[in-house]
Amino acid sequence: MRRSIPEATVARLPLYLRALTELDPGVGFEATVSSERLAELAGVNAAKVRKDLSYLGSYGTRGVGYDVALLRFQMNVSLGLTGERAVIIAGAGRLGQALANYVGFRERGFRVVAMVDVDPAKVGSNLSGIPVLAPDEVDQLLAANDGCIVVIATPEDVAQGVVDRFVAAGASNILNFAPGVLSAPSEVMVRNVDLGLELQVLSFYAARKEGSVDS
Amino acid sequence: MRRSIPEATVARLPLYLRALTELDPGVGFEATVSSERLAELAGVNAAKVRKDLSYLGSYGTRGVGYDVALLRFQMNVSLGLTGERAVIIAGAGRLGQALANYVGFRERGFRVVAMVDVDPAKVGSNLSGIPVLAPDEVDQLLAANDGCIVVIATPEDVAQGVVDRFVAAGASNILNFAPGVLSAPSEVMVRNVDLGLELQVLSFYAARKEGSVDS
Repeated sequence: MRRSIPEATVARLPLYLRALTELDPGVGFEATVSSERLAELAGVNAAKVRKDLSYLGSYGTRGVGYDVALLRFQMNVSLGLTGERAVIIAGAGRLGQALANYVGFRERGFRVVAMVDVDPAKVGSNLSGIPVLAPDEVDQLLAANDGCIVVIATPEDVAQGVVDRFVAAGASNILNFAPGVLSAPSEVMVRNVDLGLELQVLSFYAARKEGSVDS
Repeated sequence: MRRSIPEATVARLPLYLRALTELDPGVGFEATVSSERLAELAGVNAAKVRKDLSYLGSYGTRGVGYDVALLRFQMNVSLGLTGERAVIIAGAGRLGQALANYVGFRERGFRVVAMVDVDPAKVGSNLSGIPVLAPDEVDQLLAANDGCIVVIATPEDVAQGVVDRFVAAGASNILNFAPGVLSAPSEVMVRNVDLGLELQVLSFYAARKEGSVDS
């Protein structure tokens, strides 16, 4: 079965997976879950949950719901999380090091295998147990880590050059934390994380409480 | 005028604002923008753009579009970004320091006024020009920074206690970077940033390229 899963559904799968993980804490284990309950936990509506899960081939049982363990398994397979996936971090500055040590990565089966930095003082060292390599080692690094995800944590002004370098070495999955828009060939998947966006959303609610916003 | 703006619309406003910023680079300045062009830049459909902007009282002109400068102004007012907004970071570890120096915050009018940490070696020092305060200074800090946003960048196991401490001191806008779910009174707005979610989305596409996923 090779069915196309819409991009918006893919983006919601991790939310469902997280919700399922919350349902599965050993004590008080729930063997099944309704689409309504899953919808509530994931913050979307139940009809959307059913539609999204149908793309995975999960339809649940009327009056019973979905088998939690089976659904988690299907979700992990869909998200390519059945093995460990390598992550390479470009930029061993504060953000790069913070990401390299982010517990939420390890918990989900991602393993940061290396950081890459131009600083000769960092290259060749281990920072928090993760080796820092030089840019001229990128080709070898990518060849050794098929299907890896490259995380861009460099300053904004060098980010595009870094992406070009990694794409030339064969990177095809890029997560960008640098501000600004990066370009890459269409076969390369680039997702941008803008840490400032969430601050703006909170700012809206703060302003509304202060009574300075029309809402 | 106090109209309720739906939460999903609020979440999209920063996307529009970023798109408008890209339209306004000095040279090649565009005085007006169509909803179609804005939709393309923001990655949503044009009907949604028109609906969202109508909540701000922006309707555009048929055949001409929206006045870019006016729309940016309305957007900034709605997002409470007309002045500078204070940000306090709980946790002066790698992630806290990385966020304190994140260029994308400053560019959007957010100013990190302090970090708070329990480590006596850090308290009283300046890290990258930002003072590190002790937990017992939180009440005074919150009193001096009305309407501030508190960013949680502590380890997961202490995050809930830290939130409780800040809420007791009057914090009402919290952005959480720690993994896991935090609870807070309903009048406190908490938004969770899960840096692992985007890795999972990328993992899906990586797995699909490898041919191991049904899609």
